[in-house]
Amino acid sequence: MVFDRAILSKIDSELENYVEKDTNLYNASKHLLFAGGKRIRPYLSVLTYLLKRDDISEVLAPAISVELIHNYTLIHDDIMDNDDERRGKPTVHIVYGEPTAILAGDLLYAKAFEALSNIGDSKKALEVLKVLSKACVEVCEGQTDDMEFENEFPTLEEYLSMISKKTGALIVAPIEIGAIMAECSSEEREALYNYAKRIGMTFQIQDDVLDLIGDQKTIGKPVGSDILEGKKTIIVIHAIENLPNDKKERLLQILGNKNASKEEIAEAIVILSDSIEYVKDIMKNATNEAKECLKIFDSERRKNLEKVADFIIERIH
Amino acid sequence: MVFDRAILSKIDSELENYVEKDTNLYNASKHLLFAGGKRIRPYLSVLTYLLKRDDISEVLAPAISVELIHNYTLIHDDIMDNDDERRGKPTVHIVYGEPTAILAGDLLYAKAFEALSNIGDSKKALEVLKVLSKACVEVCEGQTDDMEFENEFPTLEEYLSMISKKTGALIVAPIEIGAIMAECSSEEREALYNYAKRIGMTFQIQDDVLDLIGDQKTIGKPVGSDILEGKKTIIVIHAIENLPNDKKERLLQILGNKNASKEEIAEAIVILSDSIEYVKDIMKNATNEAKECLKIFDSERRKNLEKVADFIIERIH
Repeated sequence: MVFDRAILSKIDSELENYVEKDTNLYNASKHLLFAGGKRIRPYLSVLTYLLKRDDISEVLAPAISVELIHNYTLIHDDIMDNDDERRGKPTVHIVYGEPTAILAGDLLYAKAFEALSNIGDSKKALEVLKVLSKACVEVCEGQTDDMEFENEFPTLEEYLSMISKKTGALIVAPIEIGAIMAECSSEEREALYNYAKRIGMTFQIQDDVLDLIGDQKTIGKPVGSDILEGKKTIIVIHAIENLPNDKKERLLQILGNKNASKEEIAEAIVILSDSIEYVKDIMKNATNEAKECLKIFDSERRKNLEKVADFIIERIH
Repeated sequence: MVFDRAILSKIDSELENYVEKDTNLYNASKHLLFAGGKRIRPYLSVLTYLLKRDDISEVLAPAISVELIHNYTLIHDDIMDNDDERRGKPTVHIVYGEPTAILAGDLLYAKAFEALSNIGDSKKALEVLKVLSKACVEVCEGQTDDMEFENEFPTLEEYLSMISKKTGALIVAPIEIGAIMAECSSEEREALYNYAKRIGMTFQIQDDVLDLIGDQKTIGKPVGSDILEGKKTIIVIHAIENLPNDKKERLLQILGNKNASKEEIAEAIVILSDSIEYVKDIMKNATNEAKECLKIFDSERRKNLEKVADFIIERIH
């Protein structure tokens, strides 16, 4: 799907308002923020708002708050993971050094809540504050779980709980924020929450799938990076729980072996092929359920959110 | 001065509400938070609130938000500065590793705003949100300025601007928050702001003085640490601007020399003695002005805030 350019341009202008200064700290904060992100999170706030309203100016500030939070988490994650590149560019700590990168993340964090403080209606502001601060807590908890999975094998349930916090929280929050700003009814908010939970899950799983069967150029990293790093994605967890012993043992030999050859990576991907099909089915079902949740909204107005649900599992990066 | 124990205990209980979980991440977040901080920031919110009100329950959540922010900044600062100890205990990143320490700070950051979301009155919540998010931005900017001063010599004006952001912002914010919660008039809020700016300044300067003439045991670090590190405190800046050339040159030889002997440190402190007296005068005047600002409040109710102003420049740690 092609995102609406007029909306994306308003989102970018709104973002620029919060990081206007031209100092080393602000430039570090802008380095990743304007390096070609898809803006799917603020876009979701706007599309949700448009289910009930027409003029989006009121929703822009809370919409971009989630993008600011998302970018702070990426900057800090890259430090924690010692990653040198993101979106084809050197990471913030590589360019500006680690102390400034920590601060650049901390600044975006503050700016996200400054954006909320510009909501005109105090009742809406307070509701949005509850949603965003809760999401920020969940992201920290989810990131910790993800790090702890490096030393243990999560169950499918534990994995789904981890991604619902680490990735899902910042997909659910912008949709809830759009709903609050548009004054959706509690029935509408529940429907949107159920839609959001499902696309939040498919968003992370599609990332896991793309790592295995995506194109190196479009995903911006070598195919099979997750296998080299030994990441316990849903695909790996399903495989370990279902493969015959010989294949399972072979997979565990390759998984997390930093010296694995390209041939071994390819072999692991073949071993994982049934599990890839399995998660594709999960995603298809979740996408259909997500679209079903939207049925209570006007059929014209809900079209873009339906498209987003499809886009998430069809995207190639 | 002795802080009111009943108030301190309510502050600690309120803090505990936000970090109840017993996980590695939460334990990392609690490591410094419950390591004997003075709680001066939430205490200032409460004392300000008590200028006009009696039951403090409403102000506790916003009061502790500033303590949570303060602690997140300490955890991240210790990573940036590579400091191994604080308050006589190993720092969070030494005990839990750097990735978990970054996340522990990020979690406290989220919890601070979660605390604000528990303010019952949405209009007050929105005003407090403006104050706290602005303070968080200032802290990041001030910390950056402080790091940049390592490579240049700030003017007195630049130094005062840096400390008003780095240290002052989190002294001014809790006082403004207390004033908002107590529904102070704009005249009262202005008076409190002027009080806060002054004690925020004396708070940092007294830290700088204690580093030179404090007692190692009570300040928790070797006397003259700032000289070894080459910190450009207000005392050093005043000295450089006013010393005769020979003394200035000798000071610059010792300042920032990590191998300086105890005798050389002592020599530098003697060279700085006139400047120490100079900043003590600045602090006395600022303290008197701060107390003068409070004159519009009831003489009984303002007593504790007057005592805090005196305490800040009389404290020995």
